[in-house]
Amino acid sequence: MTFAEQARAAKDGSRALVTLDRAAKDAALHAMADALLAAAESVLDANALDVAAARDAGTADAMVDRLTLNPTRLHGMVAGLRDLAALPDPVGDVVRGWTNANGVRVRQVRVPFGVVGIIYEARPNVTADAAGICLKSGNAALLRGSSSALNSNLAVVEALQDGLAWLGLPREAVQLVTGGRETTAELMAARGLVDVLIPRGGAGLINAVVEGSKVPVIETGTGNCHLFVDSSADLDAAIAIMLNAKTQRPSVCNALETLLVHADVAPDFLPRALVALGEAGVTVHGTPAVAAYSPAVVPAAEDEFDAEYLSLDLACDIVEDLDAALAHIRRYSTGHSETIVTNDRRSADRFTAEVDAAAVLVNASSRFVDGGEFGFGAEIGISTQKLHARGPMGLQEMTSTKYIVDGDGQTRA
Amino acid sequence: MTFAEQARAAKDGSRALVTLDRAAKDAALHAMADALLAAAESVLDANALDVAAARDAGTADAMVDRLTLNPTRLHGMVAGLRDLAALPDPVGDVVRGWTNANGVRVRQVRVPFGVVGIIYEARPNVTADAAGICLKSGNAALLRGSSSALNSNLAVVEALQDGLAWLGLPREAVQLVTGGRETTAELMAARGLVDVLIPRGGAGLINAVVEGSKVPVIETGTGNCHLFVDSSADLDAAIAIMLNAKTQRPSVCNALETLLVHADVAPDFLPRALVALGEAGVTVHGTPAVAAYSPAVVPAAEDEFDAEYLSLDLACDIVEDLDAALAHIRRYSTGHSETIVTNDRRSADRFTAEVDAAAVLVNASSRFVDGGEFGFGAEIGISTQKLHARGPMGLQEMTSTKYIVDGDGQTRA
Repeated sequence: MTFAEQARAAKDGSRALVTLDRAAKDAALHAMADALLAAAESVLDANALDVAAARDAGTADAMVDRLTLNPTRLHGMVAGLRDLAALPDPVGDVVRGWTNANGVRVRQVRVPFGVVGIIYEARPNVTADAAGICLKSGNAALLRGSSSALNSNLAVVEALQDGLAWLGLPREAVQLVTGGRETTAELMAARGLVDVLIPRGGAGLINAVVEGSKVPVIETGTGNCHLFVDSSADLDAAIAIMLNAKTQRPSVCNALETLLVHADVAPDFLPRALVALGEAGVTVHGTPAVAAYSPAVVPAAEDEFDAEYLSLDLACDIVEDLDAALAHIRRYSTGHSETIVTNDRRSADRFTAEVDAAAVLVNASSRFVDGGEFGFGAEIGISTQKLHARGPMGLQEMTSTKYIVDGDGQTRA
Repeated sequence: MTFAEQARAAKDGSRALVTLDRAAKDAALHAMADALLAAAESVLDANALDVAAARDAGTADAMVDRLTLNPTRLHGMVAGLRDLAALPDPVGDVVRGWTNANGVRVRQVRVPFGVVGIIYEARPNVTADAAGICLKSGNAALLRGSSSALNSNLAVVEALQDGLAWLGLPREAVQLVTGGRETTAELMAARGLVDVLIPRGGAGLINAVVEGSKVPVIETGTGNCHLFVDSSADLDAAIAIMLNAKTQRPSVCNALETLLVHADVAPDFLPRALVALGEAGVTVHGTPAVAAYSPAVVPAAEDEFDAEYLSLDLACDIVEDLDAALAHIRRYSTGHSETIVTNDRRSADRFTAEVDAAAVLVNASSRFVDGGEFGFGAEIGISTQKLHARGPMGLQEMTSTKYIVDGDGQTRA
């Protein structure tokens, strides 16, 4: 099939999903899980081909690891589909509604987008995850995975389609988009056939999709997250929050990347903080003012305050006051998650009002900014754009709305 | 100022608006209204220059009329700003919130986008309207008007800026973007400086912005609106709704463009409908099956079912059943407003569930799909896209949200 044929088939397939109730969608998710389990051997065999090809091509070990499936990871994919079946269905929720003076009743109701395109990188487990999220939210999925995972993705999608077919649902509701780079361009140009595109991956992929797509994009972004320790901060809490945000899982977008310390509290806070960070294996990249507190501080280059390290590294500066902290964050923030530790109500209020980010935290670790922690269940990503969805995305963010207007013959005067 | 300087000034200006409470924004709107009234003479003088230039250039009378301001229209602009002051402020509304098991409190709160770009065509009254809507929703406005209205727009914006300055607010919160076509390209490329772009105008303008913009766009679209008269329809109600939707204001996007009649009811309905439409001055463009009912029916070319006439013209066909009506609508709909007249619950339910449009109506005129009729007050347009806003847009749709997370030292386990 050409891409255009695939997209049209997805549009047709999406019509079968729009009117499914929750029970039917949950049954489909369990059938997809069963089919994936039944196909375990062929999926692992296909994955072995991808892994061997990646090794032959000299791919780095970390990348090969991300590409690799094993029985544990495959069972994780199966469990993920069953977990989705246990989540509430946002489709059909009435967002708001009213009755006009003339008796016309209006309801704004959640509906699926229709066809969702997802462009992602090497991990083949995303294939099952993204297909499941789209199905639960009533959307057909066009999955554009990495060519390095092609055999794995083909085997996974075939299994998922078998599960759909067992229940008489169209196989075309979940499709893998194959083909060369020009196919990605076609996907990004398919306005009218594809309703939404979601890139899941690194900054390069996301930027390419946002800048090149004519289809509306939901951007899941990078996180250069800051922690500002205010002059009134509880220093024990500040140390605990700093360590948790930096070290609990350094490779994720809600991890801490820059520490800003109010000058009034730096002499009390920084010596303790630097020791604690050192003991946790964190390298601090500081300005000269910070380096004065410890020989272990590595000099920070100016552009390091732009860095999303995603590692046990932390940029650090001392700022004169809250205004200087706000100015620093305004300059370097990627609008993901920004934290203040303070006991001053006015500082907390100014920080939450003035910082322009998806999430603003007071006296809590930025690691809480996460769909799982927010109780959304499904893990779709964290949006750093301002349209449609901002912050952790759940199934609700995978829907649009429609107005249903009920009358008994009313006309406009 | 270059465009980049303007955009940066708008971003700075937007910071002053983010923390304004409703009273301050309403005072600013009244000051803008007062300043516009005070500048009436210079605005009308400037407009006379634009009108004279348009006449000299041989511009069509209808276009010259849209460009022309007079004291009545200017007072309408002033009244529009005061009306905005009377509307509720969406900023600060808590959309949802909860407390996690560990005591962390989460609120999703409405916030302004920041900087909104609006690209529009000749009417200079849009300048005041768009500036007021942006201000009330806490957004700085970059207004890209038509070069044919340049003098008018400069005079209007200068007056509005005077009003802001009277209250000590930054003039840069409302700016006119001048310069040639390359400036429009810069505006569409200003990702990171401009948060949202809204085109207001014809299909050509909207398509150019949607396809060319790297800044997220809210698309206000065209309406090829259908009315399906089901076999169980109350025919008196169907006639009334049809006439109202077609003739009450034919030039707008929620006006009726295509009538589809169930074959079972065509012999009863069409003779009456064609007479009523003829008496209302409507030209019916029909298939041969429709033309068999009246010599006044003009043969419809195949592509006429794609037309958004915006005039006293109506395409018409007879369809075998509800499925055929749904298939026709699926093929030709622009996803704006689609109507069924029926007394059959199952037909109504299928129509509302299966038709993919911003608004789906049962037994009511599509003219109700309108921000004013929905009680939203402000008139920003009707979105036919599925991301962020779908259907009539009010001030609420001019906002994003932010998560505010409050703790007392919690860290993630």
